[in-house]
Amino acid sequence: MALIIQKYGGTSVATIDKIKHVAKKVVETKKAGNDLIVVVSAMAGETDRLIELAHQIVARPDEREYDVMVSTGEQVSIALLSMAIQDLGCKAVSFLGFQIKIVTNSDFSKARILNIDSEKITNELRNGSIIVIAGFQGIDEQGNITTLGRGGSDTTAVAVAAALKADVCEIYTDVEGVYTTDPTICANARKLERISYDEMLEMASLGAKVLHTRSVEFAKKYSVPIHVRYTFSQNTGTLVTKEDEIMEKVIVSGVTYNKDEAKITIVKVPDKPGIASKIFKPISEANINVDMVIQNVSEDGFTDVTFTVSKSECKKALEVIKGVVQEIGAADVRYDKDIVKVSIVGVGMRSHAGVAAKMFTVLADEGINIMMISTSEIKISCVINAKYTELAVRVLHDAFELGEHMVSEE
Amino acid sequence: MALIIQKYGGTSVATIDKIKHVAKKVVETKKAGNDLIVVVSAMAGETDRLIELAHQIVARPDEREYDVMVSTGEQVSIALLSMAIQDLGCKAVSFLGFQIKIVTNSDFSKARILNIDSEKITNELRNGSIIVIAGFQGIDEQGNITTLGRGGSDTTAVAVAAALKADVCEIYTDVEGVYTTDPTICANARKLERISYDEMLEMASLGAKVLHTRSVEFAKKYSVPIHVRYTFSQNTGTLVTKEDEIMEKVIVSGVTYNKDEAKITIVKVPDKPGIASKIFKPISEANINVDMVIQNVSEDGFTDVTFTVSKSECKKALEVIKGVVQEIGAADVRYDKDIVKVSIVGVGMRSHAGVAAKMFTVLADEGINIMMISTSEIKISCVINAKYTELAVRVLHDAFELGEHMVSEE
Repeated sequence: MALIIQKYGGTSVATIDKIKHVAKKVVETKKAGNDLIVVVSAMAGETDRLIELAHQIVARPDEREYDVMVSTGEQVSIALLSMAIQDLGCKAVSFLGFQIKIVTNSDFSKARILNIDSEKITNELRNGSIIVIAGFQGIDEQGNITTLGRGGSDTTAVAVAAALKADVCEIYTDVEGVYTTDPTICANARKLERISYDEMLEMASLGAKVLHTRSVEFAKKYSVPIHVRYTFSQNTGTLVTKEDEIMEKVIVSGVTYNKDEAKITIVKVPDKPGIASKIFKPISEANINVDMVIQNVSEDGFTDVTFTVSKSECKKALEVIKGVVQEIGAADVRYDKDIVKVSIVGVGMRSHAGVAAKMFTVLADEGINIMMISTSEIKISCVINAKYTELAVRVLHDAFELGEHMVSEE
Repeated sequence: MALIIQKYGGTSVATIDKIKHVAKKVVETKKAGNDLIVVVSAMAGETDRLIELAHQIVARPDEREYDVMVSTGEQVSIALLSMAIQDLGCKAVSFLGFQIKIVTNSDFSKARILNIDSEKITNELRNGSIIVIAGFQGIDEQGNITTLGRGGSDTTAVAVAAALKADVCEIYTDVEGVYTTDPTICANARKLERISYDEMLEMASLGAKVLHTRSVEFAKKYSVPIHVRYTFSQNTGTLVTKEDEIMEKVIVSGVTYNKDEAKITIVKVPDKPGIASKIFKPISEANINVDMVIQNVSEDGFTDVTFTVSKSECKKALEVIKGVVQEIGAADVRYDKDIVKVSIVGVGMRSHAGVAAKMFTVLADEGINIMMISTSEIKISCVINAKYTELAVRVLHDAFELGEHMVSEE
């Protein structure tokens, strides 16, 4: 008898009929002899509806109250799914974050899970119940409601899997698995059988929206196998697992792109020691994440500093920066939201030289100007003009031979 | 400096604009130098929307999960109102039932409040915050979410007022106060300046929907003065208070009616000792409230037993009764949903004879047949055919001279 965690995203529970479908899948898994914990997101559209309500009250809602509000979406889903499971003759009981003590830090709207109390869950499992847990939410140590950020239900599922030492964490979603790239851009994108935690981590943080980044970090840390699969089929999806369990070694596993970033440039910064700290400390104190950073070679004692932040935090970042510019005596601030970050990811890069050079050449051959570059052991990212997104993804996908095998006509 | 509890019902927070209006009222009260706790219901229509969702899953939802779901309505309201208050420059913090330990029994969907932890609230008040509390909800001792039944937010407000020894509990609603009768039926219905707890209790339980019955019981027990008033005006409403604080002594204070009951008759019940217990024990065990009961004079060893239950529980009651009928050897069960209970209420009845006789005469003069009668020290209720509702209310209101003083034309 296995202990299985299943997570269903918003599109999987978007309507009453879909909730009933999920209930059927859950009951089948239970009747096959497994213990089962289900983590659910809000019905698709519900979180947006709630956010819209908050924004009708005030442009920048208090973060504590915002979390009180948006966490209700999952609360509705768990109740509905539990009712639907009970209607099929199985015992089911729902739990909110506070009820099973999903303790997080107090970083409202992007809290991190610190601990989960497995006792209550274990008792209910022994009792024969299917456990239905609200994703995305927790409580901090003062008992305030927190949320984990968009996609946080994946992290809830993996954290629960880790806390209960589950055999597998199945993430049900609206795609068949993890693809070599976005199939809506490349018709020959291929579903991956397996992918390593590190690659998945890069893919997720680079914009492939299949899994929440933090869920993959969690899974890696606690060696939780994640099975990403499609809600409305029985097909095997993609297994996210340890690198040494992956047979096929390739250089590049996938091409991703991320349009959610904006580029900010501080012009003519006096190039003195400590200047970077003066720029980035207030940004970090405002809780804004900076992704890529480049600093031009100094000229006459001045330099330009360019960095990227998420588009949603661009306005906030610019406000912070305006104060800094005066203080450090820089000339100006410019920003550009019309950019995309295109990346290639693969553990094979560790042992293969020339991958970066190949990427730059492929883009250059299409006349695409590279504005920023950032690399890690297993990924290379280039910021380019957003209008080249599809073109860049396609040529890179072809150049690294990621597509389904095509039979030539000859 | 007074400690004031304000409760706003669903119609008072039905839209974003109305929430902003409430925030303004709240901030004015705070700025006048008071400590302030606000209890809020779900936005009008929201609870119905949630119930409808549940019923799309299953006809009779599990009561625990039902409470998990419907309690989200208030959660959204408190967050929105807190944001709106903050936007006006005051500190505000919202609390759910579990956060301030509004502990109830485990009687889902009609739970009773057992205790409230005032410590967290007191701390936040000292901190200068306006406290915004979700009405209608609590947790039981196992940490399950419970709800108090429709109108339960009134009870939350009064219970909070009692726990914190507030100076007054203001219940804001969509009417100007408590009226001598329903103004939509009697154009000359008069707003009462004051009414005693006992009268209000009878009025509430008899169908005047201004206050939740249990909230009045609570207020009486802990001597909490309730001020019922209109959200969208500054007018004084009706003060619900101790009897000895009421100046004007009248015989009858109000006329109410209740269309929410159904009448069930068990025909030809063998008239043996213990028969009533055999009928009503299983009904009570099914958690169904019986209101009025009459038993006909025995004839040839048989009697008819008639009682009323709420219309929503009629089906459940009939199912229970069907089993009983066989067991006790009765002939048949009949029911009638086309009834209304019309009542007159007044503490003055205690010291005045002939009030009941006058009521029966007034109804008889209009040719209205009385099916059942029930009396207490301060009220007389008659069940009549529902089609006479308005007529009966008007003639009783006139007969006991409850209306506004009318200037005659002569």
